[in-house]
Amino acid sequence: MEKQNKLAIIPLGGLGEIGKNMTVIQYEDDIVILDSGLAFPEDDMLGIDLVIPDISYLLENQDKIRAVVITHGHEDHIGSLSYLLKQIDVPVYGTRLAMGLAECRLKENNVANYKLISIKPGDQITFGKIQVGFMRVSHSIPDSVGMYFKTPVGTIVHTGDFKIDYTPVDGKVMDLHKFAELGDEGVMVLMSDSTNAERPGFTKSERQVGLALDEAFNAAKGRILLATFASNVLRVQQAITSACKYGRKVAIIGRSMINVVNIATELGYLTVPEGVLIDIDEIKNYPGNQILILSTGSQGEPMSALTRMAMNDHRKVEIYPSDTVIISASPIPGNEKSVSKTIDALLRLGAEVIHERSAGIHVSGHASQEELKLMLTLVRPQYFIPVHGEYRMLMSHGKLAQDLGVAKENIFIGSNGQVFEFSKDAGTITGKLAGKVTSGKVFVDGLGVGDVGNIVMRDRSKLSQDGVLIVVITMDKESGCVVAGPDLVSRGFVYVRESGQLMVEAKQKVKQVLANCEANKVIEWASIKGSVRDALSKFVYEKTRRSPMILPIIMEV
Amino acid sequence: MEKQNKLAIIPLGGLGEIGKNMTVIQYEDDIVILDSGLAFPEDDMLGIDLVIPDISYLLENQDKIRAVVITHGHEDHIGSLSYLLKQIDVPVYGTRLAMGLAECRLKENNVANYKLISIKPGDQITFGKIQVGFMRVSHSIPDSVGMYFKTPVGTIVHTGDFKIDYTPVDGKVMDLHKFAELGDEGVMVLMSDSTNAERPGFTKSERQVGLALDEAFNAAKGRILLATFASNVLRVQQAITSACKYGRKVAIIGRSMINVVNIATELGYLTVPEGVLIDIDEIKNYPGNQILILSTGSQGEPMSALTRMAMNDHRKVEIYPSDTVIISASPIPGNEKSVSKTIDALLRLGAEVIHERSAGIHVSGHASQEELKLMLTLVRPQYFIPVHGEYRMLMSHGKLAQDLGVAKENIFIGSNGQVFEFSKDAGTITGKLAGKVTSGKVFVDGLGVGDVGNIVMRDRSKLSQDGVLIVVITMDKESGCVVAGPDLVSRGFVYVRESGQLMVEAKQKVKQVLANCEANKVIEWASIKGSVRDALSKFVYEKTRRSPMILPIIMEV
Repeated sequence: MEKQNKLAIIPLGGLGEIGKNMTVIQYEDDIVILDSGLAFPEDDMLGIDLVIPDISYLLENQDKIRAVVITHGHEDHIGSLSYLLKQIDVPVYGTRLAMGLAECRLKENNVANYKLISIKPGDQITFGKIQVGFMRVSHSIPDSVGMYFKTPVGTIVHTGDFKIDYTPVDGKVMDLHKFAELGDEGVMVLMSDSTNAERPGFTKSERQVGLALDEAFNAAKGRILLATFASNVLRVQQAITSACKYGRKVAIIGRSMINVVNIATELGYLTVPEGVLIDIDEIKNYPGNQILILSTGSQGEPMSALTRMAMNDHRKVEIYPSDTVIISASPIPGNEKSVSKTIDALLRLGAEVIHERSAGIHVSGHASQEELKLMLTLVRPQYFIPVHGEYRMLMSHGKLAQDLGVAKENIFIGSNGQVFEFSKDAGTITGKLAGKVTSGKVFVDGLGVGDVGNIVMRDRSKLSQDGVLIVVITMDKESGCVVAGPDLVSRGFVYVRESGQLMVEAKQKVKQVLANCEANKVIEWASIKGSVRDALSKFVYEKTRRSPMILPIIMEV
Repeated sequence: MEKQNKLAIIPLGGLGEIGKNMTVIQYEDDIVILDSGLAFPEDDMLGIDLVIPDISYLLENQDKIRAVVITHGHEDHIGSLSYLLKQIDVPVYGTRLAMGLAECRLKENNVANYKLISIKPGDQITFGKIQVGFMRVSHSIPDSVGMYFKTPVGTIVHTGDFKIDYTPVDGKVMDLHKFAELGDEGVMVLMSDSTNAERPGFTKSERQVGLALDEAFNAAKGRILLATFASNVLRVQQAITSACKYGRKVAIIGRSMINVVNIATELGYLTVPEGVLIDIDEIKNYPGNQILILSTGSQGEPMSALTRMAMNDHRKVEIYPSDTVIISASPIPGNEKSVSKTIDALLRLGAEVIHERSAGIHVSGHASQEELKLMLTLVRPQYFIPVHGEYRMLMSHGKLAQDLGVAKENIFIGSNGQVFEFSKDAGTITGKLAGKVTSGKVFVDGLGVGDVGNIVMRDRSKLSQDGVLIVVITMDKESGCVVAGPDLVSRGFVYVRESGQLMVEAKQKVKQVLANCEANKVIEWASIKGSVRDALSKFVYEKTRRSPMILPIIMEV
C-alpha cells in the first residue's frame, strides 16, 4: 500500500459483528487507533473466555502508532487494551471514566506499564499529521465521545456508540453543534454506529427508565432487587435516587457492580448520599420495604449474582415471595434463553418480576433510524462507512444514507481488515477499497492468547457431541506383539452401566484388528492405530449411531 | 392415588417448557393420552438429538391406556409417538394430516406395529368412561383440533395449540360454536395454549402472509427462494398460488419440505396445478423470474438447505445477487443467532433478504391475549390450567383468567408430573393438587434412548470447555514398578505445537508423583491415579488457567 498523501481507514474489528471494535486511522507514517475492544464468545467457540482482534497489522507498524483513542468505557471498546499494551507501548486517551475502568482491567491483567491520559469532550490533540477532536455523545455509559480526525486529505467523523438523548440524566447534552459545524466545514467520511439501524423511530431517553423505576419502587411492597449493566452508571444513579426517595437502603452485589460503583463514585460520576449504602450482610437488619439490592446478572450469566439467587444458590441472599425483581436490560442476542430461565426461576420462587416486556424499564443506548438520519444530515459526508454491527445492520444503515442523498458508490459496506483509502488530487477527494490487511478473531482461553485455533476447537466440538473412546495397547518394541490390553476407556459417550456388552464387543473388535495386523505383519504404529480407529468408529456408529472421538494410544515396552 | 370416582389430569410434558407436550387424562381404570410430542435439545444438552417425556407412569399403568389422541401433526405433539408405541400397544387417533405425518415418522423409526385411526373435527369417540370429542381450531398446520373430555366427574376442554383466524386460507373456520356450547353446558376445567400469553392484542390471520408474499413475488426481479416451516401447508399453498399467478415454476429442496409436500398433496391438503412442480435440477432451464424454490432452513439449522446455500455449500443451488430470499418464519428462542448468521451470509452474496422484521411476512400460529380472553369467556370454566409454555407464560395466562373472573384458587399453575385431581360430591366439584408422578426429560442420542444422563452430560460439558489430557502408564503387576510411560496425549486442550514445553514439564510432574508413590509404597492403582490427577490438574491450571479433564490410565503387564 502506497502511503504518500493517502489516508487509510482500516477497521480491525466491529464490522459484520457486534463487539471487538477497533479502527486504524493512518496518514503516511502516523497511526491513531480508535478503540480496542473485545467480543464475547459465540456458542460454537467452546471453552473460549474472550475474543480479541488480530493486531498483526499494528505489530508490523508499531513505529508509526502515536495513540489509542477511546470513545467510552464499555468492554467492547476497551476490553482488549490489556493485550494490546502488553505488546505495544502507546499512550491511551479517553474520558476520565473510560480511563478509570480501563485502569481497573489493566491492573487485573497485570499490565505493568501503561500511560492513560484523560481528556475532556471538546479537547483536540495533534498526533503527527492527524488532529483528533473529542465530541460529547449520549450513550448507556457517561462521558462517551465521538471523534473527528482532521488530516491533510480530509476530515473523518466517527460517532462512537451513540444515541441522541435530549434529556440526559446528567444534563450533559450531546454536542450536536460540533457535528453540525464539521458538516458545514465539509466532512470526507462519516463512520456511524449501526447497532439499531434496523429500528424505525427514535430511541427513548434514559430518563424514561427513571420514571418507570420510580413507579416500580412506589408499587413494591417488599425488597427490590435491580439487575442492570454495571456500567450504566446513570441508571444506577436513578435507582439510588429512587431508593432514597422511598427510604430504602442500598446494598450492592456482584463483582463488576461493586467495581463500577466504586470507580464511578470516586471519579464523581455517581452521587450516593451518606448512610445509604449498606453491606449485603446488613440487609437482614431492615424490613423488606427499606431495601434495594443492586445486582449483576441482567443477562442470565450462569455465575452472576442474580442467576445464583434465582437458582437458590447464592451465599448471602435468598429470594422471598414478597420480593420485586427488576431486570433493567434487554437480552443481548444469544442470551435470550438464559434470561428467560432466570425469570422463570424467580417467578417459581414467588417473586414479582419486572422485565423488558414491561414498558419503559429499559431503553437502548444506540440510535434508531430517525437519529441516524439526523446524524447523516448534520454531518452530510461525502463518503459513508456504517460501522458497529452485523452485515445486515450495516446494509440497512447504508440504505438510510442512500435515501438521504449520499451517492451509492460512496457508501462502503466493508468487513474487518478492509483498507478504505482516500486521496486528494487538485482538491478532489477520491475514496476506494484498497486491498486487505490481516485481521481476525484471536481467542483468549485462560492465560492462553491465540493458542486455541481451529484444530483445538474442532476437537472440543467433537468431544462435546459424543465424548471420547480411548483404546490403550502396550506393545513390544522389538516383536510388535501385544503385551497388554487393549483396554477401553470412555468419557461422555455412554453410561458405563449401560455400556457393558458394547464395550466387551468393541474390545473384541480391536483384538481382531490387532490379530489381522500381526498376521499381515503390519508393524507401523500409525497404520495399526488407523486400522483400530476405522474399525472401532464403524462398529460404534452401527451400534449406537454416535461418533465419539476414537483415540488409540500405543505404549511400547 | 385413589381413583374411585376421581378424575386425574397429569401433564407429562409441556408445562414450564415449550415442547414435548403430553397429558394424561385418567378416570378410574381408563387412561387417554393427549399428544405425544418431543422437544429439541437446549444448548447445554450436548450431543443430544431429541428430548422426549419420561413415560414411567404410563408403563406402570399400561393396562388402563385406551387411546392416544393427537391435536395436530407438529413434532412437539407427535414426535415421541415412535418411542411410546415401541413400548406400549395403543391405538392413535387424529386428523388425516396428523396421522399421515405420524406414519411417515413411525416408518422412519422402524416401528413395526401401529394403529393410526383418522378422525374428523366434530367426531366423538368413547374410551371406557371417557368420551372424547374433536373440535376444529386454527393453527399453523391444517386440520388442528382441540378436544373435550366428558367424564362422570365433569368436562375437560383442551384447546391444543390454537389461534383464532377469522379468514383461514382453507376457509375452515374454528368451531367457536362448540366451545360456546360446552361453556353453556358447564366446563369443569379448561386447559389452554399459553405460548403467546404475554403478547397483547390479536394474532394476525395467515391470509396476511399471503398478501405479503404476493407483494414480494410481484416485486422480485430474479429467482425467489422461500424458506418456511414445511408443516405450514397453507403457507406453502399460498406461495405456490402466488408462483402460479406470476408464472413461476416451483422446485422443492430439503428433506422435510419434500416429505410434507408429498404427504399433503397425496391427502388433498395441498393443490399444485399440473406442470408447476419441477425438479431442482431443472431450474437452470428457466430464467430467474420464472423460478420459486421452496426450502427448509427458516431456523438457520446448520445442515438445512437454506443454510448450506447461504454458506455457498449446497450441491445444487448457489445464490445469485438477483435472488430474493424470503424467510417466512420467526426464530424460535435459541435460534436467533443462527438465523441472523444465515441472513448476513445471504446479504453478503448480494441477495435481497425479506425476513421477520419486514412487515407481514410471518404470523404466529398461537393465540395472543385477546384471543385467549375470548376462549376463556366462551368456555367459562370452573378451573383453569394454562398449558404449553414456560412458567412465566403460564403465569401470564393465569393472570388473564383471574382478570376474567376465574377464582384465583381455581387457577392451577403446575409443572410436569403434577397430578390435578377432581372429584364430585353431591354435585359439587372440587379440584386439588394431589402429589406427583415420575416425569422428566429423556434424552435421545443416536439409537440410545435414556442412556445419556447427568454423568455423561457433565463429562461432555467438561470436555467441550478445555478438552482432555490423558496420561498412560504401564506398570508391572507384581512389583508395581513403572514399565513404560508416562505418556501424555491431549485433545481439545492446546495446540500441540504450542504445548511442547508444557507437556515436557507435565510429564516431569507425573514422574515425580510416580516416584513418590513408589517411595511411599503406594500400590493401589486408584490412589496412584488420584495423585496423578491432582498434581497434574493443579500444575496445568497454574500454567494455563484451564481445567481439561485429566484421565490417568494404568495398564498392567
